[in-house]
Amino acid sequence: MGLLDRIKDPRDLRALSDDELESLAAEIRDRLVATCASNGGHLGPNLGVVELTIAAHRVFDSPRDPIVFDTGHQAYVHKMLTGRHDFSKLKQAGGLSGYPSRAESEHDWVENSHASTALSYADGMAKAFAVRGERDRTVVAFIGDGALTGGMAWEAINNIAGGPQTGPDRRPLVIVVNDNGRSYSPTVGGLATHLSGLRTDPRYEQTLEVVKRTLGRTALVGQPVYDALHGVKKGLKDMFAPQGMFEDLGLKYIGPIDGHDRAQVEQALTQAKRFRGPVLVHCLTQKGFGYDPAVRDEADQMHSPRPFDPATGAPAGTPVREWTDVFSETIVRAGRARPDVVAVTAAMLGPTGLEPFARAFPDRCFDVGIAEQHAATSAAGMAAMGLHPVVAVYATFLNRAFDQVLMDCALHKAGVTFVLDRAGVTGNDGPSHNGMWDLSILQVVPGLRLAAPRDGEQLAEQFTEALDVDDAPTVVRFPKGAVGSDVPALERLGTVDVLARAEAKDVLLVAVGAMGKVGVDAAKRLDAQGVGVTVVDPRWVKPLDDVLVDLARQHRLVVTIEDNGRVGGVGSVLAQKLRDAGVTVPVRDHGLPQRFLDHAKRDAILAEAGLTAQDLAREVSGLVAALDSVTHDRTTTVDR
Amino acid sequence: MGLLDRIKDPRDLRALSDDELESLAAEIRDRLVATCASNGGHLGPNLGVVELTIAAHRVFDSPRDPIVFDTGHQAYVHKMLTGRHDFSKLKQAGGLSGYPSRAESEHDWVENSHASTALSYADGMAKAFAVRGERDRTVVAFIGDGALTGGMAWEAINNIAGGPQTGPDRRPLVIVVNDNGRSYSPTVGGLATHLSGLRTDPRYEQTLEVVKRTLGRTALVGQPVYDALHGVKKGLKDMFAPQGMFEDLGLKYIGPIDGHDRAQVEQALTQAKRFRGPVLVHCLTQKGFGYDPAVRDEADQMHSPRPFDPATGAPAGTPVREWTDVFSETIVRAGRARPDVVAVTAAMLGPTGLEPFARAFPDRCFDVGIAEQHAATSAAGMAAMGLHPVVAVYATFLNRAFDQVLMDCALHKAGVTFVLDRAGVTGNDGPSHNGMWDLSILQVVPGLRLAAPRDGEQLAEQFTEALDVDDAPTVVRFPKGAVGSDVPALERLGTVDVLARAEAKDVLLVAVGAMGKVGVDAAKRLDAQGVGVTVVDPRWVKPLDDVLVDLARQHRLVVTIEDNGRVGGVGSVLAQKLRDAGVTVPVRDHGLPQRFLDHAKRDAILAEAGLTAQDLAREVSGLVAALDSVTHDRTTTVDR
Repeated sequence: MGLLDRIKDPRDLRALSDDELESLAAEIRDRLVATCASNGGHLGPNLGVVELTIAAHRVFDSPRDPIVFDTGHQAYVHKMLTGRHDFSKLKQAGGLSGYPSRAESEHDWVENSHASTALSYADGMAKAFAVRGERDRTVVAFIGDGALTGGMAWEAINNIAGGPQTGPDRRPLVIVVNDNGRSYSPTVGGLATHLSGLRTDPRYEQTLEVVKRTLGRTALVGQPVYDALHGVKKGLKDMFAPQGMFEDLGLKYIGPIDGHDRAQVEQALTQAKRFRGPVLVHCLTQKGFGYDPAVRDEADQMHSPRPFDPATGAPAGTPVREWTDVFSETIVRAGRARPDVVAVTAAMLGPTGLEPFARAFPDRCFDVGIAEQHAATSAAGMAAMGLHPVVAVYATFLNRAFDQVLMDCALHKAGVTFVLDRAGVTGNDGPSHNGMWDLSILQVVPGLRLAAPRDGEQLAEQFTEALDVDDAPTVVRFPKGAVGSDVPALERLGTVDVLARAEAKDVLLVAVGAMGKVGVDAAKRLDAQGVGVTVVDPRWVKPLDDVLVDLARQHRLVVTIEDNGRVGGVGSVLAQKLRDAGVTVPVRDHGLPQRFLDHAKRDAILAEAGLTAQDLAREVSGLVAALDSVTHDRTTTVDR
Repeated sequence: MGLLDRIKDPRDLRALSDDELESLAAEIRDRLVATCASNGGHLGPNLGVVELTIAAHRVFDSPRDPIVFDTGHQAYVHKMLTGRHDFSKLKQAGGLSGYPSRAESEHDWVENSHASTALSYADGMAKAFAVRGERDRTVVAFIGDGALTGGMAWEAINNIAGGPQTGPDRRPLVIVVNDNGRSYSPTVGGLATHLSGLRTDPRYEQTLEVVKRTLGRTALVGQPVYDALHGVKKGLKDMFAPQGMFEDLGLKYIGPIDGHDRAQVEQALTQAKRFRGPVLVHCLTQKGFGYDPAVRDEADQMHSPRPFDPATGAPAGTPVREWTDVFSETIVRAGRARPDVVAVTAAMLGPTGLEPFARAFPDRCFDVGIAEQHAATSAAGMAAMGLHPVVAVYATFLNRAFDQVLMDCALHKAGVTFVLDRAGVTGNDGPSHNGMWDLSILQVVPGLRLAAPRDGEQLAEQFTEALDVDDAPTVVRFPKGAVGSDVPALERLGTVDVLARAEAKDVLLVAVGAMGKVGVDAAKRLDAQGVGVTVVDPRWVKPLDDVLVDLARQHRLVVTIEDNGRVGGVGSVLAQKLRDAGVTVPVRDHGLPQRFLDHAKRDAILAEAGLTAQDLAREVSGLVAALDSVTHDRTTTVDR
């Protein structure tokens, strides 16, 4: 039995010796590598926070002192130290979530994995403790330097620094900046430069020296080491060395600290805890620390690899062609053809497939950091001056910029194209990564045009069509994973592709985007049952082409299917369009249930939601049968 | 003819002498006061930027050098200097917009009036000029210290500072910080403290002294004054004095400058322009400057008064009881009854009616600055620790926090109550102030409960109900303006109030929120025509009570009316609910057209959209007639 298996509760950490703690760290790293090698997972970030997490759990009293993780994918170590040892089904149905989860543990408080939220949560928690008079509780927030580029983090820091910094009213809140110089890729912007300036500040070396000399490798947690270090008379001021912008804002600062020197981290956290007010502890870490293949991986330090060979870090299995690859190639071609095409991304050059574009056109590609709001509005600014920006983000993250898409792009008729990767169900990453909102909330944006390509060929074609729109924002959304083979059209009517057709016009099946194939398969099954189905792909789901109204009139039932929440989605908008046109053909709209979906594989979630050819065929068949009987009923009802 | 009337184009300013410019400033102030006294308008902010705006238009070459205003309500002076002199119908239909407007002038680039966007636009414009090789154009962005508390501004500054600061690749961009220490109310947070530290920095006095000694009151625009001041050998460094966080981030800084000393401002802007890269010019101004009643108004320095007596500043007319007043009283009562109730606002303590609560419970009221994202997520943090936060914002500004409402509040089942004032049509402030989005986008948020009270009594009642929900976010939304008299209910079924009933059950009229009165009035008209209408107010529009399904079944037609965009609104969701239940009664949903609405009075816009009792009655009457004929048609069709 290893050391790790003996840790049932973070308190168990306190009894361990230095040597044991070092062994524990090694054991944790082994398990991280083994787990991610077989399952995939956020390896690099977790390898980087092993010592930070051990130290935090030794110094603070979780869950009474809440520990909040920004971008919770860095919480694997925290999970292990809070009694969750079985990582065998990580991110799979029934297994551990890849993020903190309140259902799993009382030690988990925040499970959202959108970046830059932790400090806001922490500020709220600290305020709550003050209002409730629970002044002995300390809030601890882990945040990466990458997440500090997000606007929310700034709003929070401004508030935390604006609260009482002295006297009994100050609110105990320790911000641990996990500074590894990267989000997925190296952190960008003025702040990154500033942080890197702090790293090379001579005071850093001095602090290191003093701490090492005084403490050696022995941590004396709970002892008044501070006094030994600085002498009581000097006060706290010296420990909190003046350090640039954080201090300018009025925030106490400790650092920089070597984030892989557990003893040093514990020392700093202990000081911070004793201050009983807001303190920022700046820790330098290395993403992938302790696992050579990750450290050597320059692209993203194995941020979140698929299954790999643990000995070499080399990916297991054969790569498949993904939606992202199609976009990646298409935008490079567009870049060659049109000098006005520029690209913008929010710290996701690699994951969104923009890297080849960035290499080909380095002056026309802008990584703005984890800053979707700025991505959208700076794109609007570029569009105003004659460029055509392409903003590539994950679908779920565009929610951060809803107001900017609406006001800064649409109101200003800005020709900006948003490319939403990972739209619809993404699955394993749980509720905050599913891109199941865009088809609904974007429907309300005046003038915006929205494309949902059904296959690789359509992605390329519709992206190109989007680039031709210069007086309104356009959106192209597609799912995660393998793009599969193309789904051919029989005919195009307006913007609408007819994918299948039958003798009888019983059902008009409107299949949105990647649901096209599901629609065609369902139609085959229904055809075998004698139900005649016309399958269409609207391609542009906003605005919906009027041809759909004409088609609807020619059928007895309209069925829609989309990989998006049902409420306010394409089905709902089509139904409204039909109501407005006075078309009384009944509509049944299929989509994801409007709730937060637990982590599981994409296919399993779609099946659970009934979004498969088999389920759809079964249901439509039932609807048609019911319709026949209702039709006869109505004849009498209407005559009453 | 005054001086102002001779300014047809900003270039005309260059020919004016110092004395003339001083007279012009006085003339502009007179016109601002006269205009706002008769029409209402953003008086305080515009009085504060008279000299800044004159200086900017003398130094830069608009529109070739785009001048972008954050929160465009400070652009009246800019309008006057770009040939728009007729302010007689300001903010009225057919008159000038209260914000920049691209339809009005080529000098206007950004018309969104949500705060903190200007720097993002400016960064995008500057990047576009670089990509297009138009390196002789300079982007100028005006932003207030209040707007700097918004996360977007931080994202932009991080990017601007992260771009090239030296060499030929740097991008000319001048950020004018209009630092008046306030947004509506005094600016909050660490940044405010920092800015105020800069104000009192001894270097400020020195700079003032040097500039005054050298220049006297004579501006020498275009001359190499810089050399005279500092000597060429000292380089730019001395002028750009190191100044705290902006410099920490790598951004060149000039200031602080007396923003009411036009010559000094011109001098600083000229230096900034010559640098041909990003520069922040920090100008100190006073909101309301030059008009005593505004300066003396401690609440908000006449930020945006209604019509007033220009001699005294005293409001004209008698105040009416508004929706905001009802909320204001209700939350104070709730605060007394429940110690866990706390309030959060985003720089709008006064306008949202929270001031009495803040006075009664100063430790339980948090103004977070113009930071809706932080407001929502810090509230989620408070809720996690046992408080019940009430976040009071304007409906349109909640769009900024959509992701935070969805992920940080709803996913976390946080008992946070959002109070949305100015929901629906607000009118005069134009498209970016109408709160016509919330009923649609909030419908997709799992678990969230949404109330639309129809009158003051219901506002108090539903707000209290919302406070009782501790495991999900709740929203209470109501319009701008006079609350009017209560609309009594005949009966309550589930959450639904029945407001009117007739013998015949022809039409179920579902009237949302303030449309309740319109519904009752329409029903009276229809009753006179022999059409029987049941009018219901769902009160809670998410989730919709199942009783509506039963009611719908009992009628021949369902009509909905809401003060919100039609797409994805309550009508649309009810229609889906009826489809799901297999109810085939036709539905007609009324709401605002899904486009950006030009500024006009609320009543005029509602009338234009057909949301009046008269229009509704006329249309429903037609629908019922058509339904009769369709019913007979169908009898034969169905029998085919």
